[in-house]
Amino acid sequence: MQFNLEHSILFLERTPLILETQLKGLPEIWTSTNEGPDTWSPFDVVGHLIYGEKADWIPRLEIIMSSIGNKTFEPFDRFAMFNESEGKNLNQLLEEFKQLREKNLTILKAKKITPEDYTKTAIHPVLGEVMLSNLLSCWVAHDLSHLAQINRVMAKQYKEEIGPWIEFFRMLQ
Amino acid sequence: MQFNLEHSILFLERTPLILETQLKGLPEIWTSTNEGPDTWSPFDVVGHLIYGEKADWIPRLEIIMSSIGNKTFEPFDRFAMFNESEGKNLNQLLEEFKQLREKNLTILKAKKITPEDYTKTAIHPVLGEVMLSNLLSCWVAHDLSHLAQINRVMAKQYKEEIGPWIEFFRMLQ
Repeated sequence: MQFNLEHSILFLERTPLILETQLKGLPEIWTSTNEGPDTWSPFDVVGHLIYGEKADWIPRLEIIMSSIGNKTFEPFDRFAMFNESEGKNLNQLLEEFKQLREKNLTILKAKKITPEDYTKTAIHPVLGEVMLSNLLSCWVAHDLSHLAQINRVMAKQYKEEIGPWIEFFRMLQ
Repeated sequence: MQFNLEHSILFLERTPLILETQLKGLPEIWTSTNEGPDTWSPFDVVGHLIYGEKADWIPRLEIIMSSIGNKTFEPFDRFAMFNESEGKNLNQLLEEFKQLREKNLTILKAKKITPEDYTKTAIHPVLGEVMLSNLLSCWVAHDLSHLAQINRVMAKQYKEEIGPWIEFFRMLQ
């Protein structure tokens, strides 16, 4: 599928609602449990998505669209949420994410990006040269893969309880 | 995590809303595309979930809870939706799933299942003896793993478009 800005926004707008519908008011045991050492719980994932709204997508978009000399992204801290989420509960995180996403999509729409902008580039500190269309597609794919992760992590909580059915669940093995 | 009926119902009630929030009104290219030959699109997955509501969870629950002699489940057709969904659109499927799930959860609640019932058994045609708690946990894990699948399938549509970022997406490789 080719990158489509309108379709991408249509999806990016939904993510906070999907997360809220799925997670708000669930027992904490389900939202705070991860897949084992060095893995993330749904709570951690929402914190990570928040940090992306603050430090990743829009700041990097601004760099790509700017005419500054050194168009290199700041490195992104994939573990920042472990400090940033401290002392907060899941409902607070869901609300914070919703507000940040709304603000960021307002900024994105105000840029009036055209297909001519899609090939504008900047330098990713690890990956090298990336295009604007790569960044915006990545925003969508990143949401989707973390939604998939939340579902997988939650499904795994019943890994033992499903008994013989485990044989049919490749994802849980 | 141990099987918990109340928590399980709390989640099972959400699945139709999660699907609706995520899929309703999205461009068809996004909901009808799969991961390649012999894989399912989000549209196919919703059809599969509908068939589960009709032929799997409650009919099997009834068998486990009954006192009939031959407590063997009917085999479940994992591909039934390819016929059943024909001629329908995604909005119709989402609505059908919502209604069936609501009806089935009403039946489930009316059974007044107690922890003493959890160990009641029946015979799965492939897996052998399974307990009621296995079946009910499996209902939840099945929802969650198909939600994960939908997210993965949708993320993959941008696999090419994310460019160098593919390196960070194990799920899409």
